[in-house]
Formats: sequence, structure tokens, C-alpha cells
Amino acid sequence: MNPTLPLQAYDVRAAACPAREVLDHVTSRWGGLVLIVLQDGTLRFGELRDGVGGVSDKMLSQTLRVLEHDGFVARHAYAEVPPRVEYSLTPLGREVASRLDALTEWIMANMDRVQAARAEHGVKR
Amino acid sequence: MNPTLPLQAYDVRAAACPAREVLDHVTSRWGGLVLIVLQDGTLRFGELRDGVGGVSDKMLSQTLRVLEHDGFVARHAYAEVPPRVEYSLTPLGREVASRLDALTEWIMANMDRVQAARAEHGVKR
Repeated sequence: MNPTLPLQAYDVRAAACPAREVLDHVTSRWGGLVLIVLQDGTLRFGELRDGVGGVSDKMLSQTLRVLEHDGFVARHAYAEVPPRVEYSLTPLGREVASRLDALTEWIMANMDRVQAARAEHGVKR
Repeated sequence: MNPTLPLQAYDVRAAACPAREVLDHVTSRWGGLVLIVLQDGTLRFGELRDGVGGVSDKMLSQTLRVLEHDGFVARHAYAEVPPRVEYSLTPLGREVASRLDALTEWIMANMDRVQAARAEHGVKR
């Protein structure tokens, strides 16, 4: 994206643009991982928590609420005892998750190259 | 990515994996925008700062250092008066930036759908 080009209607380069807020949501530590893990289908809260290493119940709840508000995640609550709540990606969520997945797959596939660069720059592994 | 699958050698689902750290670097507020803006070529520090709305000199310096250490950004200092410092993407940086660009372009192109979802959920625009 050429920095000299005029800003688009929605433009992450602009500090106040809502697109930047959405970028933050889908690339936040937990937001991104939740989208990626939900790609394989509907999961219950506990399954999601187990799939995303290190997340707390509180952070997972907050993250799911934000992604639900943006229209990326659908929440299904079943009136059972004990209550059952399931989460899945919406069509919109599947689209954004696939872009995010391409990014994370690239990183995982190229970590050896990154680690080599870090060793060259004297960064502790 | 199926949460029930065994973890890969580098796996963002694992809390302690260095791949997660790299994901954080390239998806941090400023890290992501710097990679995207640098896609169009070499830029001086001031040009970069102007291209990334809202970043401070301090945050931009820190961000560039992290991306340089990961091997994504190359820094060229010219012994001139006044000193000239230029930044560009490395081949590794161009690869990761193109994945990130696909994500941000999707967001900017689909903000109307996100805003509609937010309105439905009663989120203030």
C-alpha cells in the first residue's frame, strides 16, 4: 500500500478508521487464535479454551464477545442442564479466518528462517 | 487448524512457541502497519512515520528494531550530514507482508458488512 496514495473510505493507515479497530480485534493475541481454531467447526467453550494454549476463561469470554459483535463468531446457547454454549464462525468469520490462517501458516512454515535471522542479530532464541 | 491435532514443531496454538511471538510482532498495531506501508519500497524514517497514522517516533523506532531482528526489515544508514537512514523489506519481510496485506485488504473491503453486524449487535460505530 503506497503511503503517498490518498486514503480509501476505510483505511487502516488512518489512526481513527474503524477498519484499524477490526484489524486489532482479529490480530489480537487471543482473537486471532480463536478464529484460527474455530475454522474446523463448532466448539464448546471448554474445547476452545483447550485449543488455545494459555488463554484464561475471562480473556476467552471477552474475546468471544468482541468477535461476536463484529459478526465473525456466532454463539449458540442451548437451554439444557447443565447449560451448553457453542461457538462457530459465521460466513464473514470464515472469510477473515482464512486470511489469518494463511499468515500464521506462513509463519509456522518459515520459523527456521526467522530464527536464523534472530541468531544473526544476536536475539536470544 | 483442528484443535485436536497434535502440535507441529512450531505451533501458534502452543503458549510457549516462538512462532506465537513472531505472530505478535507482525500483527502488533504498529508492526503490521509498518510491514504494509513498506511494501511499496524503501522509505526514510520520517516518510514511514507519515505513512503510519498516529505512530510516535519512539514506538516506530522500537517497532523497526523488532522487525529488523526478526529478519523482516533491513536498515540502511548512510554516512551523510545530516545522517540518512532508510528502511526496506527483506525478501522474508516481503513474504510475510503479502499475507498480512491480504488480511487488511479483506478487512477494508468488507467493513460495510462488519459495520452492519455491529449495528445489529448494538455496538456504537
